[in-house]
Amino acid sequence: MKNETGATTAKCIGVLGGLGPYAGLDFVHKVFDCTNAATDQEHLPVLLYSFPNAIPPRVEFLLGKTTINPGYAMGELLVRLAKAGASVIGIPCNTAHSASILDVALDILYKSGFQGQFVHMIAETANHIRTAHPAAQNVGVLCTQGAYHSKVFDMHFNRYGLNVSYLEDEGRALLQNAISNSSYGIKAFSSPVTDRAKNDIGLQAAHLAEKNADCIIMGCTELPLALSGTDFQGIPLLDPTKILAESLIKAFDATKLKHNH
Amino acid sequence: MKNETGATTAKCIGVLGGLGPYAGLDFVHKVFDCTNAATDQEHLPVLLYSFPNAIPPRVEFLLGKTTINPGYAMGELLVRLAKAGASVIGIPCNTAHSASILDVALDILYKSGFQGQFVHMIAETANHIRTAHPAAQNVGVLCTQGAYHSKVFDMHFNRYGLNVSYLEDEGRALLQNAISNSSYGIKAFSSPVTDRAKNDIGLQAAHLAEKNADCIIMGCTELPLALSGTDFQGIPLLDPTKILAESLIKAFDATKLKHNH
Repeated sequence: MKNETGATTAKCIGVLGGLGPYAGLDFVHKVFDCTNAATDQEHLPVLLYSFPNAIPPRVEFLLGKTTINPGYAMGELLVRLAKAGASVIGIPCNTAHSASILDVALDILYKSGFQGQFVHMIAETANHIRTAHPAAQNVGVLCTQGAYHSKVFDMHFNRYGLNVSYLEDEGRALLQNAISNSSYGIKAFSSPVTDRAKNDIGLQAAHLAEKNADCIIMGCTELPLALSGTDFQGIPLLDPTKILAESLIKAFDATKLKHNH
Repeated sequence: MKNETGATTAKCIGVLGGLGPYAGLDFVHKVFDCTNAATDQEHLPVLLYSFPNAIPPRVEFLLGKTTINPGYAMGELLVRLAKAGASVIGIPCNTAHSASILDVALDILYKSGFQGQFVHMIAETANHIRTAHPAAQNVGVLCTQGAYHSKVFDMHFNRYGLNVSYLEDEGRALLQNAISNSSYGIKAFSSPVTDRAKNDIGLQAAHLAEKNADCIIMGCTELPLALSGTDFQGIPLLDPTKILAESLIKAFDATKLKHNH
């Protein structure tokens, strides 16, 4: 039967989700949206590991509030993804791309013998900006306190000649709360997102716009759950999860990428 | 490191998705919605195999238009799910629960040595009706032509003393098109669903209401992408994917089930 159906060993796009759970689903939704398909059979095979319970908090580690590096659990899950058939892997979480976390995770993945491709969301985003917005110089980034402190955006964007601007202290604290506050943040209330979280995020995006950002990055995968559209007050609004979705499709089977989506 | 994080061997809820792709995501969304959790770490581990390309069409097989039984590919994917850690498994597709398909798939799963639990969506739905709507006698079912011909709803609902009513020939054909027509059906246009598909489904639900249904079942996992709410013209509107989501959580960790959701 194995040779007949091909389902036993077929390779797939692997997604390490759960960071958070709804952001992982939102990401897979974008993979489907960006795939040229009118029937079930025309869609690509996708494997999603959503194990949020197994992965310690990223922001707390990056801020030094805990010494438990979530990169270890992420690495083990990446190995599970690879062993389960993933040949092209992405992680829809900006904060988890911080070097002190991601380097640990990828080290475990590659030491396991993984021969496939890991697609780096933030590097892909920088590359996308250079291609799609060649005149951009100043990129405004909405992100967690963890990603801010780890300088993960600076590291990858600076390589492409892009400057990064962030919110001031108070704005970053408000944004972090809109993401993770247990009484109104997106992680606790994703479906639907609360008006308070939406309003706070909109206000902070406006602050970045005032700083003359040439484009604004939704640099936390929870943000596209609250903010939509392709521009904010006329400034391009970029979604790294959409960019990663397109990059994973290109890496897995470029003929399936839907253009002009 | 294995013992430290637990991520290497942790068991999870397994979802055989891809039938279709968006319906699979909609289902996992409901698992998250029905879970008591305010942080990422409080959510349950979920594994989604969305391999729509590997699974031949269900309706065509049930109508005798092809002899390729999709149960074989489904069985192989169930084995992959189990080997990847799933201890409690569900399939968010009503049509695929037809005995001629599901029996083949489960036979492959159990012969592989699976020791976990498969949760049967349609049996769970029948049980739910008996509990939540004890006076119900006549259940109106909106479903594919395949599920209609396989009598999968009759088989499981009759056991609980429930009669099943369906649409007439013309209505079933219109409903099947609203699901799978390549120019306006939900499988081709899920995000967003077309107005034509929504309108046609609403009209067919109204026809079932006229047949004195005590409740109406959205008996195809694409339908909740087009129809929402808990009643239709005052008649309880039941969503088997929501019932399966709750049943999987109960089977995996009953303490995590959100009540009164």
